[in-house]
Amino acid sequence: MRTDELPAKLAPMAPLQFYFDFISPYGYFASLRIEELAARHGREVEWRPMLLGVAVMKVMGLKPLLETPLKGDYIRRDVLRYARRHGVPLERDLNASVGNPLPPARAFYWAKKHHPRAAPALAHALYHAFWAEGRDLSTPEALRQVALPMALDRDALVEGAASEEAAMLLRNAVASALKKGIFGSPTIVVDDEPFWGSDRLADVEDWLASGGW
Amino acid sequence: MRTDELPAKLAPMAPLQFYFDFISPYGYFASLRIEELAARHGREVEWRPMLLGVAVMKVMGLKPLLETPLKGDYIRRDVLRYARRHGVPLERDLNASVGNPLPPARAFYWAKKHHPRAAPALAHALYHAFWAEGRDLSTPEALRQVALPMALDRDALVEGAASEEAAMLLRNAVASALKKGIFGSPTIVVDDEPFWGSDRLADVEDWLASGGW
Repeated sequence: MRTDELPAKLAPMAPLQFYFDFISPYGYFASLRIEELAARHGREVEWRPMLLGVAVMKVMGLKPLLETPLKGDYIRRDVLRYARRHGVPLERDLNASVGNPLPPARAFYWAKKHHPRAAPALAHALYHAFWAEGRDLSTPEALRQVALPMALDRDALVEGAASEEAAMLLRNAVASALKKGIFGSPTIVVDDEPFWGSDRLADVEDWLASGGW
Repeated sequence: MRTDELPAKLAPMAPLQFYFDFISPYGYFASLRIEELAARHGREVEWRPMLLGVAVMKVMGLKPLLETPLKGDYIRRDVLRYARRHGVPLERDLNASVGNPLPPARAFYWAKKHHPRAAPALAHALYHAFWAEGRDLSTPEALRQVALPMALDRDALVEGAASEEAAMLLRNAVASALKKGIFGSPTIVVDDEPFWGSDRLADVEDWLASGGW
């Protein structure tokens, strides 16, 4: 019996699509909870970093969140409040420039292709370096300072992040996300249902538990 | 003993400041829950309609939510999903123009001044007419169709909504909200702590129960 002939109840369930930007604090917060949430419902997580800058600025015609008057101030306050409440480490200065967002996203897609089983751990390591430790990740060389998963070789990753292959993989991933209408970080897609925002994880969980509404 | 000399535990607690726009679907959703939430913690609600258009477009340089590419489509889907899940009546066409947002907000501030005890019921009536029934409220005359609280006279309200006094009251309210950094609907301010979004009502409740974090 082929997989596509299995009855629905036995067919493997699609992984949750976890779209995020490494420079998004709410993506970081959600990254710390998404795998446990998925596992509670027998799901895996497909990590899909993207570049919000492309969607937000070029397609939507908006400004970056933290640079938007009024909203930027609120977001800084809300991010610090969340970290305080949930004991999430956050050493990054929210007033500092996020720098070039490309290297961590390119490194991720390079690793996903060449060392797929290490890719989720790399996503966590990059998020931790950027948000929990406040490290600069704005050049491939800067990635050398990240505490990498064992399976990844430091030199190979730095070289991979700087490669044309990684640039192309990321371009394709961003184009694919935009085509699916993804515009914010995090966005979790459960089967075909999108949920935007780390404050919607409870909705994702209810959707998984109930089968939708 | 004067009120300001009462020990903190006996002093009357400040009402929750409920900032919203009548044309905001998330403000409508929150309006249906905010009073019960406040009452559970011995609080009143101060209703504060504002005009998001002024904040979002003029101060923040953004586009209206439903007209923003990608985000607009998601919001329409999310609003319908919420209404379905919670059984909230929603007859408004989300693709239709919201029209002129001034008349209901002006009517509210006119009523708040001249019939303050009827003002919360008027806010509910206006929200219900606009969202649950899909009525046009874009002229003072259109307000005649709203099912008004008993204490309010239909002709007086229509005249009040068209008055220079109401225009001035609304202008002042919008300026005051902007000065406090309010940029989204709904925003609930608990003492001095702002929470933006109808998906943050659980946070408001936790904040009230715990005294903050």
